[in-house]
Amino acid sequence: MQTTEIEALVDEMARNARYASLALATAPREEKDRTLRALADLLENSVSPLMEANGKDLEAGRAAGLSDALLDRLALSGERIGAMAQGVRQIADLDDPVGEVLETRERPNGLLIRKIRVPIGVVGIIYESRPNVTVDCAALCLKSGNASILRGGKEAIYTNTALAALVTRALEEGSLPGHAVQLIPTTDRHALQCLLKKDAWIQCIIPRGGESLIRFVVENSLIPVIKHYKGVCTLYIDRAADLEMAKKLVINAKCQRPGVCNAIENLLVNEAIAAAFLPDIARALVAEGVELRLDESAASIVAAAGDIPYIPATPDDWTEEYLAPILAIKTTPSTESAIEDINTFGSGHSDGIVTADEAAARRFLAGVDSATVYWNASTRFTDGFEFGMGAEIGISTDKLHARGPMGLNELCTYKYTVTGRGTIKE
Amino acid sequence: MQTTEIEALVDEMARNARYASLALATAPREEKDRTLRALADLLENSVSPLMEANGKDLEAGRAAGLSDALLDRLALSGERIGAMAQGVRQIADLDDPVGEVLETRERPNGLLIRKIRVPIGVVGIIYESRPNVTVDCAALCLKSGNASILRGGKEAIYTNTALAALVTRALEEGSLPGHAVQLIPTTDRHALQCLLKKDAWIQCIIPRGGESLIRFVVENSLIPVIKHYKGVCTLYIDRAADLEMAKKLVINAKCQRPGVCNAIENLLVNEAIAAAFLPDIARALVAEGVELRLDESAASIVAAAGDIPYIPATPDDWTEEYLAPILAIKTTPSTESAIEDINTFGSGHSDGIVTADEAAARRFLAGVDSATVYWNASTRFTDGFEFGMGAEIGISTDKLHARGPMGLNELCTYKYTVTGRGTIKE
Repeated sequence: MQTTEIEALVDEMARNARYASLALATAPREEKDRTLRALADLLENSVSPLMEANGKDLEAGRAAGLSDALLDRLALSGERIGAMAQGVRQIADLDDPVGEVLETRERPNGLLIRKIRVPIGVVGIIYESRPNVTVDCAALCLKSGNASILRGGKEAIYTNTALAALVTRALEEGSLPGHAVQLIPTTDRHALQCLLKKDAWIQCIIPRGGESLIRFVVENSLIPVIKHYKGVCTLYIDRAADLEMAKKLVINAKCQRPGVCNAIENLLVNEAIAAAFLPDIARALVAEGVELRLDESAASIVAAAGDIPYIPATPDDWTEEYLAPILAIKTTPSTESAIEDINTFGSGHSDGIVTADEAAARRFLAGVDSATVYWNASTRFTDGFEFGMGAEIGISTDKLHARGPMGLNELCTYKYTVTGRGTIKE
Repeated sequence: MQTTEIEALVDEMARNARYASLALATAPREEKDRTLRALADLLENSVSPLMEANGKDLEAGRAAGLSDALLDRLALSGERIGAMAQGVRQIADLDDPVGEVLETRERPNGLLIRKIRVPIGVVGIIYESRPNVTVDCAALCLKSGNASILRGGKEAIYTNTALAALVTRALEEGSLPGHAVQLIPTTDRHALQCLLKKDAWIQCIIPRGGESLIRFVVENSLIPVIKHYKGVCTLYIDRAADLEMAKKLVINAKCQRPGVCNAIENLLVNEAIAAAFLPDIARALVAEGVELRLDESAASIVAAAGDIPYIPATPDDWTEEYLAPILAIKTTPSTESAIEDINTFGSGHSDGIVTADEAAARRFLAGVDSATVYWNASTRFTDGFEFGMGAEIGISTDKLHARGPMGLNELCTYKYTVTGRGTIKE
């Protein structure tokens, strides 16, 4: 496509999304749920055309030399399509977040002020290879009354186009505006740049993907962005920790699924218990296949304990998101120094303390400036499902609007309605 | 100052603000209130040095040819300084928003999840000539546990510097970090540009001022911005309106203080009552000194009624914020067309319907996509004090984070704390 064609296309899509969003904002729950259930049925009944479209992406991906890991993320199967359909039905079953009265106040002059949950409006979702994001995000935005504009990755363009066509058919069946969900049909980066300037029509951008994609979005967007760059999560083992519990939590937080953002990358151990704890946890981690990167103090204790393999940590280790079975470990003198360390090097995602000392725990919970702070629990629970939200569109490490796991409520904003009896300002 | 000096200075201020914000986030209410009361006393005891500093700004302003209106906004007086001090004491009296438990949920696995109100962190306030903003914003940020970086206008630099020095003394007296409130000592635009890139240290920017300043901030900021560009507010007089009530509300919403953002700039009149309502309201508005800009349909009715002066409206009139005794008026066939008109031309600030028809009112309240929507009340109530927030830092027409009047709660975000008993993810 020509540059000017792209510009005209994105502008038209953004305008159409805005009009659709106004209709969607007051759409009754039944229409939204009927559309979602129609989409789930369409997905289940479209396995072979979806697999065919996906085959084209996989073929192009292989030709382009994509890694096996990326090809796996891209690949659909009957099972994966069934899981998508099931996810959409679960979203249909959730309560409608729109219209809930969040606060009511009556003023001395008789004004009745209500704060009401309403959709954000138009949400732009920018994502990379995983095609299930297309369906998940479309469904979450629809349920929360938002129009969405989806911009997926080049690798999944055939699959995403086929999925978006099903969404459009479902919108028809549910009698909702066809522009309520739109996929940008080109992965030209200029289209993304145009989209990020449409602040007259689009109210929120959610980028999902690697740090460089997210940075590009933040640098180019006039529209508010909700994001998390990375998850550099830390567990701090306090001097008053139950060391058996600590061991269990470290292993779970690091090893249960090392490739996700709420797995820990750093371990801080209070100096007072380092000698008692470090050799044992180091052995256990190595047995799980974890590579250890130790500061000098931790290294001297582990080295003294005998034949445990480790690598000396470099300064970069304290800020790196490994997403892999690697753990950076250092000792620290106090709860206060642990708090400072996490606030300096962490990413504000999920951090925890293991301790039996309630006062230390309270200081840690208050002092650590992260979206989710844990006491005697694995950091792996930072997740919309684990939080009981029933679904999640992502996790935010931003301070503004939404922080931590984002479900349907976080895809909404609020408005005030004010009712008077001819009330004027004196 | 040299460009590199400015860069180094802003970077250091932003870092220092971040460190101060971490201390401030857990500062007990008593320390914050003691600091605020000390500031109020210092203001009252510093009338003559403040007037002296303000005199330099006024002199420079006169030399630069500032308008009388601008000079008046800039000028301090004993009374205005007293009002500032009183405002600060009122903020001290407000409840501390920090630490409130907003939600609690216990999960089947025993995890106790609490959602807790916490400060945003570091807030940058960008504003123009009015020096009372320096004190108001410093006090509101302090009370809500946020560090602030203030960047005032060139016209008020001496006054702002003198006021900021008092804030610093008050922080000392209250034993709070001196960097909790910092004024950028230069009004070089490069300093503002640097500030807007410090997303590693600053979490929120609030610009207050004209549309071009706010647009500059949005275009240059990597940090989330909360703003309102302008207030193009509309009252819609429905066919089922009580016309006496409608007249009273229109006069109040337009004339009580025409220079503010929640005054109306547009009036929509249902065609069914236009002939009955328009001549009467037009005469009343003209008697109040209001200039009328009428669409063809409204003009033909008003012209037929005799000698009422008006100007034909141009397309720009429907989107212009006059901030002056001017009102654009058009007729419209229905509540639905009024909703569409407001969603197309309005600024999403404050809009209202006057009607005795509850069903029409409900459709309007739901359908108008504005931060505050009124039924049978003047739009002039969109204000933190009128909403019972006790204070306001501004009004947002954004969808994200805060919408409408912003008080102390809106200067906060939330965090989750999660307590387990050695709970791991299965």
